[in-house]
Amino acid sequence: MALRAVGTTYPNPPVGAIIVKNGTILSRGWTQPGGTPHAEIHAINQIKNKKNIEGAHLYCTLEPCSHYGKTSPCVNKIIELKFSKVIISQLDKNPLVKSKSVKKLRTAGIKVVIKNFGEQVKILNKVFFDSLIDNKPLITLKIASTADGKIATNSHQSKWITNSISRMVGHKFRSLNECMIIGTDTIRKDNPLLDCRLDGLNNRSPDLFVLDRKLTLRKNLKIFSIKNRKIYIFYSDKVKKKIFKLKNIKYIKINEVNNLLNMKSVIKEISKLKYTRILVEGGAKLSASLLNNDLIDEIVWFRASKIMGSDGINAISNLRIDNIDNLKKFKLISTKTLDNDQLSVYKKN
Amino acid sequence: MALRAVGTTYPNPPVGAIIVKNGTILSRGWTQPGGTPHAEIHAINQIKNKKNIEGAHLYCTLEPCSHYGKTSPCVNKIIELKFSKVIISQLDKNPLVKSKSVKKLRTAGIKVVIKNFGEQVKILNKVFFDSLIDNKPLITLKIASTADGKIATNSHQSKWITNSISRMVGHKFRSLNECMIIGTDTIRKDNPLLDCRLDGLNNRSPDLFVLDRKLTLRKNLKIFSIKNRKIYIFYSDKVKKKIFKLKNIKYIKINEVNNLLNMKSVIKEISKLKYTRILVEGGAKLSASLLNNDLIDEIVWFRASKIMGSDGINAISNLRIDNIDNLKKFKLISTKTLDNDQLSVYKKN
Repeated sequence: MALRAVGTTYPNPPVGAIIVKNGTILSRGWTQPGGTPHAEIHAINQIKNKKNIEGAHLYCTLEPCSHYGKTSPCVNKIIELKFSKVIISQLDKNPLVKSKSVKKLRTAGIKVVIKNFGEQVKILNKVFFDSLIDNKPLITLKIASTADGKIATNSHQSKWITNSISRMVGHKFRSLNECMIIGTDTIRKDNPLLDCRLDGLNNRSPDLFVLDRKLTLRKNLKIFSIKNRKIYIFYSDKVKKKIFKLKNIKYIKINEVNNLLNMKSVIKEISKLKYTRILVEGGAKLSASLLNNDLIDEIVWFRASKIMGSDGINAISNLRIDNIDNLKKFKLISTKTLDNDQLSVYKKN
Repeated sequence: MALRAVGTTYPNPPVGAIIVKNGTILSRGWTQPGGTPHAEIHAINQIKNKKNIEGAHLYCTLEPCSHYGKTSPCVNKIIELKFSKVIISQLDKNPLVKSKSVKKLRTAGIKVVIKNFGEQVKILNKVFFDSLIDNKPLITLKIASTADGKIATNSHQSKWITNSISRMVGHKFRSLNECMIIGTDTIRKDNPLLDCRLDGLNNRSPDLFVLDRKLTLRKNLKIFSIKNRKIYIFYSDKVKKKIFKLKNIKYIKINEVNNLLNMKSVIKEISKLKYTRILVEGGAKLSASLLNNDLIDEIVWFRASKIMGSDGINAISNLRIDNIDNLKKFKLISTKTLDNDQLSVYKKN
């Protein structure tokens, strides 16, 4: 249930809830787009006769909330409807919630059990905790390259290196992330839409963070044509230039390091906006810059079974690695064949 | 049985044979090192009392021979020992054998059945037919790279990009090939042994074809220290230089194309020597040169889960591909995880 919500719940975590009575599932819920209603309420809302809930058990992937935010506390509703037991996979690390909800439920006479539902739930919750507590959103780098690691010919042709299945799965990754970072090089060369073009998921195009250090991008680019998403433009605090105004665009000043926007500041700003999942689709310089700052948590690498040779454009720009022991090391998590392409997923070591 | 012999039978094909009587396997045979005895004879030799063979069935992955070569014809022995039936997966395309053996066996009153044993046998026999009939040995390119396709740092460090399992499997590929082609760049930079260092397979180091266009290699290199293998040095017919003499080294003159040895001539010379399986372990220029001549049949690509960035040395040099439609296309055959590395096998499309 929680997995259904990934990418849509920002700034809230994706949570799943199931209501069970006498061994029968009464309803299933998950955090709704934008974060409300919460999973527990979504599950409750699906039961017409609320009286039936009395004595039921509630399973939650994360401790229900007990504070007033956009919504009133879930625990109040749980107590009001007389659930007899709540089974929680993990306590919330949010200081506003942590263990307080459990205490409140128990005080109200409801049995509470903390029981690990498995690794997948832990991974989901960790993304939320990392961004909430450590201001460290999950950053996923997506690469689509030839077998020899090239993302375009030297004349910047890249349509298409990977096959249509890979590209569809690529769009799926867009739907699973709340926002994307993109460099001006890629925008200028490809003029991409950067939306999610999967049937049924068209409304899940991620918000956009554009690194436009010198504010050179023109208004008539395709990315500015999509109105139902937020766009943030990061530019250098050294640039004194007029910014153009579009309704859905905000500008954020960033300090420079070695004539590049400070990537750590960039991520900090994104984190301040409470995004928890960021997708990076290149280009090569942006990827290198993030790698050099050890900011990449995950890589999803689509590899076509084609070879381009050394004059193609590299997936990753110069990392200035002078010793083989200093290569950027990742852990191979999974590998999948997509027709004649290959998808490998790596995680930070 | 035939698979046991791969890489050791040159100039003969690897063949497997099984002798069955009354539903019981009496013995198993496979082509012995250097090509003799043949698989059928190897199987026969394991049966002490030859009288027991009378009435037995013989299964062969390839039509038994009927001509005098290094050995006397297998069919004579089959007839002499009174096998009642011979089951053959494929007729030999060698004009000296083709269907002649079947005819001879049938004339002698032995039942002969042609029955496809499966795809693996076909693939094995095809390698032999291709080199025998079309002078086209199987050429396998081995690459060990980072995830982003780099085979060494710009200071030529490559020890080690891939892990120890990958390197062991790499040596296994050496044992499965009869010879290797290698460029002088790799020899000069790494001074490799290019032997097979797997316990029990030490005697299966492939013979060596060194591309030393200008005859610049010194005698004291490690490759010359191994005495039990043949080494051939290809050099340009434009070079007038004294060649040094070592017992196991032969020199072969090759014409040039664009200041490079003509790769087609190189393969032709190797084919003339009746090698059927060639392994190429780089470097990048040699790989590019073979790819540009469409001479690579198979790629075995070991990829570490590490990233080096664009200043590393590319697995494949410049292919001068100006259009994305002209990328060198391969078919992804299999992919395997070797601890934290990945092995992908590609075949020519």
